[in-house]
Amino acid sequence: MADDWAFLERIYKLLRDEDVLATSPEASVVDFKFPDELARIIDVSLDTKVSRTADEAEEICRLVLRYSVKTGHRYFCNQLFGGCDVYGLAGAWITDALNTSQYTFEVAPVFTLIEDTIIRKCLELFNFSEGDGIFSPGGSMSNMYAMILARFKVNPKFKCMGMFGSPPLVAFTSQDAHYSLKKAAHWMGIGLNNLEVVESDERGRMCPEALKKAIVRVKEEGRRPFFVNATAGTTVLGAFDDINALADVCQEAGVWLHLDACLGGTAILSEKHKNLLRGSERLNSLAWNPHKTLGAPLQCSILIVSGEKNLLHKCNCANADYLFQQDKFYDISYDTGDKSFQCGRKVDSFKVWLMLKVRGVNELGLKVDNAMEMSQYLTNRLKSNSTFRLVLDEFQYTNICFWYIPKSMRGQEETQEWWNTLYKVAPLIKEKMVKKGSMMVGFCPLPHKNVGNFFRMVITCYPTLTRNDVDCFIAEIEQFGDSLDFPL
Amino acid sequence: MADDWAFLERIYKLLRDEDVLATSPEASVVDFKFPDELARIIDVSLDTKVSRTADEAEEICRLVLRYSVKTGHRYFCNQLFGGCDVYGLAGAWITDALNTSQYTFEVAPVFTLIEDTIIRKCLELFNFSEGDGIFSPGGSMSNMYAMILARFKVNPKFKCMGMFGSPPLVAFTSQDAHYSLKKAAHWMGIGLNNLEVVESDERGRMCPEALKKAIVRVKEEGRRPFFVNATAGTTVLGAFDDINALADVCQEAGVWLHLDACLGGTAILSEKHKNLLRGSERLNSLAWNPHKTLGAPLQCSILIVSGEKNLLHKCNCANADYLFQQDKFYDISYDTGDKSFQCGRKVDSFKVWLMLKVRGVNELGLKVDNAMEMSQYLTNRLKSNSTFRLVLDEFQYTNICFWYIPKSMRGQEETQEWWNTLYKVAPLIKEKMVKKGSMMVGFCPLPHKNVGNFFRMVITCYPTLTRNDVDCFIAEIEQFGDSLDFPL
Repeated sequence: MADDWAFLERIYKLLRDEDVLATSPEASVVDFKFPDELARIIDVSLDTKVSRTADEAEEICRLVLRYSVKTGHRYFCNQLFGGCDVYGLAGAWITDALNTSQYTFEVAPVFTLIEDTIIRKCLELFNFSEGDGIFSPGGSMSNMYAMILARFKVNPKFKCMGMFGSPPLVAFTSQDAHYSLKKAAHWMGIGLNNLEVVESDERGRMCPEALKKAIVRVKEEGRRPFFVNATAGTTVLGAFDDINALADVCQEAGVWLHLDACLGGTAILSEKHKNLLRGSERLNSLAWNPHKTLGAPLQCSILIVSGEKNLLHKCNCANADYLFQQDKFYDISYDTGDKSFQCGRKVDSFKVWLMLKVRGVNELGLKVDNAMEMSQYLTNRLKSNSTFRLVLDEFQYTNICFWYIPKSMRGQEETQEWWNTLYKVAPLIKEKMVKKGSMMVGFCPLPHKNVGNFFRMVITCYPTLTRNDVDCFIAEIEQFGDSLDFPL
Repeated sequence: MADDWAFLERIYKLLRDEDVLATSPEASVVDFKFPDELARIIDVSLDTKVSRTADEAEEICRLVLRYSVKTGHRYFCNQLFGGCDVYGLAGAWITDALNTSQYTFEVAPVFTLIEDTIIRKCLELFNFSEGDGIFSPGGSMSNMYAMILARFKVNPKFKCMGMFGSPPLVAFTSQDAHYSLKKAAHWMGIGLNNLEVVESDERGRMCPEALKKAIVRVKEEGRRPFFVNATAGTTVLGAFDDINALADVCQEAGVWLHLDACLGGTAILSEKHKNLLRGSERLNSLAWNPHKTLGAPLQCSILIVSGEKNLLHKCNCANADYLFQQDKFYDISYDTGDKSFQCGRKVDSFKVWLMLKVRGVNELGLKVDNAMEMSQYLTNRLKSNSTFRLVLDEFQYTNICFWYIPKSMRGQEETQEWWNTLYKVAPLIKEKMVKKGSMMVGFCPLPHKNVGNFFRMVITCYPTLTRNDVDCFIAEIEQFGDSLDFPL
């Protein structure tokens, strides 16, 4: 047992000494190896008859750290998550060590109070007058929870009867929304054809008029609209749908309005930017992932539901006798596990609670402000530099989408061929970037806007970036771009 | 940044000094407080304008630890999980700190190889000749994955069309199976009425004959059988269904056979006990949770699927352009994230990989053997002691179910009234136990067997228990029982 703590101390020191949070100036984001090379460096195979020493175990861990991506590096701008808040990380370590499940007060007394506190705090932040909520293992799951609730609300009998006799139920989402809605439509037995993909405008915001027409059309076809998914902070362009306009449409049509604020929900913490979420009090449900740009370590996703306090429970309960015994000696309304889909449920609430408890909304809000300011600064710098072209002229959020234009292409006529060549640039620069290991930025196309590959740089709250960092980003990409060999 | 590491070091020391793994002989399992008392001791509320020091943050964490349940305590026998393997815990800390998502090779190179290795190891252990697999956030989710695959296999068109026009699909499970099947039937739009609950025998094993009849009846009713859920290690009685007998029925009927081995799958590591899973090579899919008795920290659940390597992908893919770009510079078959329901997916594979890498199957198998031996020893001791009554005479697995019989009730005629009184005993002893904090054992009724509350004691692989521990359990329960006030 003393050995256990000694080994954990080694792991602590290893993480620190190997600089996994990539805080030193000379740290790399990644030391990239192709799969077969990596397999030669780290023997991942498993034998039946071994018993390794703590020294050997530590050595294995060192290799794992060395060849893993340092998502905490300031130049890791590749995903919607990145560095983590130290209180978030401390919270994760604590819940790992306590190793309990968030289903009964009996085995998670403190965490039961904490989850409830966060749920109520979120209801307050997003102006839901009353309601309930739950932590789930990620945004896809939170969005599916919302769709399940909307279906239950339409007809609670689906829970017992299934949907076989029913006219098709139809959900609506936008062209720019996250693909998790597709997966939910599939899993719930609704089908991709009953997920209507509504047109979005040039900035990626769902068009309320198009939604309205789609709902009318679907009704005319004898199908039943039941759920609209709006987005706050779309995956690629960072667009915020107009909640009020969509709520007008949904209210008239009697359809559940959910907001996928997995990315953009974090703006609610900022006094300056929370207006991005105006109208949230009119939503039926909202999903928010503090594990995205806010820096709670993965996984940390919360769904809140407006109205009737008991809806989540009524919808999801299965009344398992062995877990939710009715004859306990404490108030069993504190046993919240029957409102979730999961049985055993990792404690995800504590890390974000600890962040909020220690820093307060105000300090976290200032970190959001800084990420927004640096994103705006990046946008402005790219706009004024003929080497780059923004995908959107207007600034929206902390995802910045742009092209790098190689020297020989600047000032040329922008024919389709010119564009097709440009679309090859981002993958090539990305390859150079990863092989050097100095930074990581994602790229993607946007087929429904008829545009090919561009960079999507994401600026997160941790670590705190400066203008100098942003200048360095730009210089680094220019350098990679200069070194491209033509023809591509 | 140096501050971050300093704070994490404090947390390490706090966890050690507060003895969260409850390794010292005088440690309590829990210092129980009712919700309102606890809320007075720990101020869980969140303010907007604060900024606490590291000292204050540490103090908050200390309180959280102090009033949380020590599931690592040797006398925490309350759930199907308990203490954790130190390599599992180290693995969890490492993946928290690296904070990445298991969806692309790009951001999780080492973990991609590791997840693949574990999947292949599981296919080998359970004798699946070929196939695929995925880690999911818990057994309920793994079971739903299997049901989704079975539905896709029946008719891949459901993915696009939904199930609205279809004759009802019917899944089968047993009376003793886990409630997650109900939740999956609800979420998938199949409905609880289309989940046929098949009779199980006196030990809790599904009756193959009853399954056969149920399938015939369902077909006659014009409904379509598509999925049978068998169980290896039922939640309460620890029963293992006869895989071969059920496979005969399923093969004849052309129905997918899934094994919920979330609990019992761990037996595969033991040379002595792996025969509990004989017939596993005939399954279509299997779910196993190393986070149950094996001691990988929550969450760690794996689903494996037999046959066609590409089925998970074909079933679940949504081809998101921004994540699974086709023009990357490495072999994109290493990007495995489109076969999962989740988008961002916590790395759950590393902790169990590290346990297996360091200890090997053999050492972990010996821990399973010890848990089984102690469970058998407990069973034998209870059998030979008139103070106790076993729910099942025959030993099955590491869940031991029994009643404590108070002195004044011993040797009396066992009328219904006698039994009804007996059913009140476990909750009362449990209350005393929790308030003292010396041990925790769950209780539950089994309504479909017409029996009321009994204790379900679960013996896990960590920490390693001895006969002396088992003797202490029994003595402690006897002491609580002796102190009951009559009439109950």
